[in-house]
Amino acid sequence: MVKALGFLQAIEDDLRRVEEELQRLVAEAGVPVLAEASMQLLRAGGKRLRPAFALLSGRLANGKPEQLVPLAVALELIHMATLVHDDVVDEAATRRGLPTVRARWGDQLSLHTGDYLFAKSLLLIAGYEDERIATTLARVSVRMCEGEIRQMASSYDVTQSLRDYFYRIKAKTALLISASCALGALAARANGEIMRHLGAYGYYLGMAFQITDDILDMAATEQELGKPVASDLRQGVLTLPAIHALRASPRRDELAALISRRRLEEREVRHALKLIQDCGGLEFSRRVAIWYVEKAKKRLSGLPGGWPLEALEAAADFIGTRQF
Amino acid sequence: MVKALGFLQAIEDDLRRVEEELQRLVAEAGVPVLAEASMQLLRAGGKRLRPAFALLSGRLANGKPEQLVPLAVALELIHMATLVHDDVVDEAATRRGLPTVRARWGDQLSLHTGDYLFAKSLLLIAGYEDERIATTLARVSVRMCEGEIRQMASSYDVTQSLRDYFYRIKAKTALLISASCALGALAARANGEIMRHLGAYGYYLGMAFQITDDILDMAATEQELGKPVASDLRQGVLTLPAIHALRASPRRDELAALISRRRLEEREVRHALKLIQDCGGLEFSRRVAIWYVEKAKKRLSGLPGGWPLEALEAAADFIGTRQF
Repeated sequence: MVKALGFLQAIEDDLRRVEEELQRLVAEAGVPVLAEASMQLLRAGGKRLRPAFALLSGRLANGKPEQLVPLAVALELIHMATLVHDDVVDEAATRRGLPTVRARWGDQLSLHTGDYLFAKSLLLIAGYEDERIATTLARVSVRMCEGEIRQMASSYDVTQSLRDYFYRIKAKTALLISASCALGALAARANGEIMRHLGAYGYYLGMAFQITDDILDMAATEQELGKPVASDLRQGVLTLPAIHALRASPRRDELAALISRRRLEEREVRHALKLIQDCGGLEFSRRVAIWYVEKAKKRLSGLPGGWPLEALEAAADFIGTRQF
Repeated sequence: MVKALGFLQAIEDDLRRVEEELQRLVAEAGVPVLAEASMQLLRAGGKRLRPAFALLSGRLANGKPEQLVPLAVALELIHMATLVHDDVVDEAATRRGLPTVRARWGDQLSLHTGDYLFAKSLLLIAGYEDERIATTLARVSVRMCEGEIRQMASSYDVTQSLRDYFYRIKAKTALLISASCALGALAARANGEIMRHLGAYGYYLGMAFQITDDILDMAATEQELGKPVASDLRQGVLTLPAIHALRASPRRDELAALISRRRLEEREVRHALKLIQDCGGLEFSRRVAIWYVEKAKKRLSGLPGGWPLEALEAAADFIGTRQF
């Protein structure tokens, strides 16, 4: 149930191989409940953006599918592992409209399932000769953990800065997307110049992606999100619209007092959302996201043309305007 | 606070380097609470058995400390990562007499700390040219997760076989100790024959180690254990003495009924323990552990002599007789 995105059509076959490989790996789990839980995660879908970025970047550098697919699968496994662990930390009941692994099988199995998927990714990564692939992904994984812990540590903190937020989403999201692009090129044996451009493109686009995600969490409906609206706010995770409002809203003291109360009731969540929207928190965040998208597109300008480049441009436009 | 074991004296300097490196890695965590939590884990100590096995095996194959220390550190980081995740799953309050990370900082931080330590280990592993090190450790990590999940799935199951138990402790414990020995030799560029012997030695010793651990959980005092007596039984984890009693005790039906009740009260735990002890469950398990120790020692016979070999022999004797 992968959502079909236009710019992915050119790599449809590669993505199908990624999907088949993911299913094969999950099915071979030595314990039935582990295979079931992992399959549930796969079924919940997602856009397979990280594999797509690795495949497009690798194709741009004239890579062959067999050079790229294992990396693409490993990236999605790492991403899935973080999702299943995040659901434990967030005590999430649904993801993309389906019950989370923890809701169905409990926190303990979720924890082990995340560890398992991550370990599985390492087997694929170990297959690459160039040690920069393993080193980069290890480094990114370290930073992702740090980002998650910073997010935890800063929850309900109404004094946090925009800088704190940007640092966090970089660690949590942008670095893995950046690595997907750079390593896709590396797996295709591209030169350092191409890798750097694609890495920067992925970084900026990853920032835009997370900001858009944070906007949608406040702007979309529960049905569109597949989880409750404003789930960040409910958990005390302050994202760009909220941090902007805490600085720019004429009623910022009221908002700060509300958030600091913790464990908001439904009525209070709605009220906080209204304060954030009234002072233009969502528009401000959209402008920042678009600024990042433009930065990303600029980094594509020095790269060799062709359909992969066009698809990467289309991906940037999609991220800038996405509604899901 | 590493307990000084006689057979480790010869590698004291190497182990000190491992300890310093562990402390350095933990201190450089990008978030203070993460460094604190990891330092707490380090302080809780442990025997650093996996590093010791890697160092001794590597020394036996004429490896230099600089070839072996990063691997030894990585092995301990992997082990620490599993401990901190296990404490979450087991809802453990203390480990080795100190509060667990989850007791002090909560499950969420424990989960991220485990992920962080594991990711840190990957950075060290990626530094080795021979891809068999990364591949073996990835494969072992996958099996360790499967072992943990099997343990969860079989809790309170009074019909489980000895075979189930041996499969579980192999995945959970023996494979990583086996890999410590084999990869220590590999890092020292030993030949395949030496690696295989050391790997088999580590496997048998790992089995003996876990069986002894499971015996001590029933035979030692709370003070010796640094955690409540019979914590396995309290969580429904059936180990060798219990599984033996469920087959061999004249009062096995009574024991099965007791365990199947789940959530045993203190009085019931004591009663179950007595039933297990009365039918010789601990003696039986000790005999099995010693059988594994002997198998391990036999695999040392074809290896080059010298102080590392003597230390590995002493390690086997220690595992066979250890009281902590």
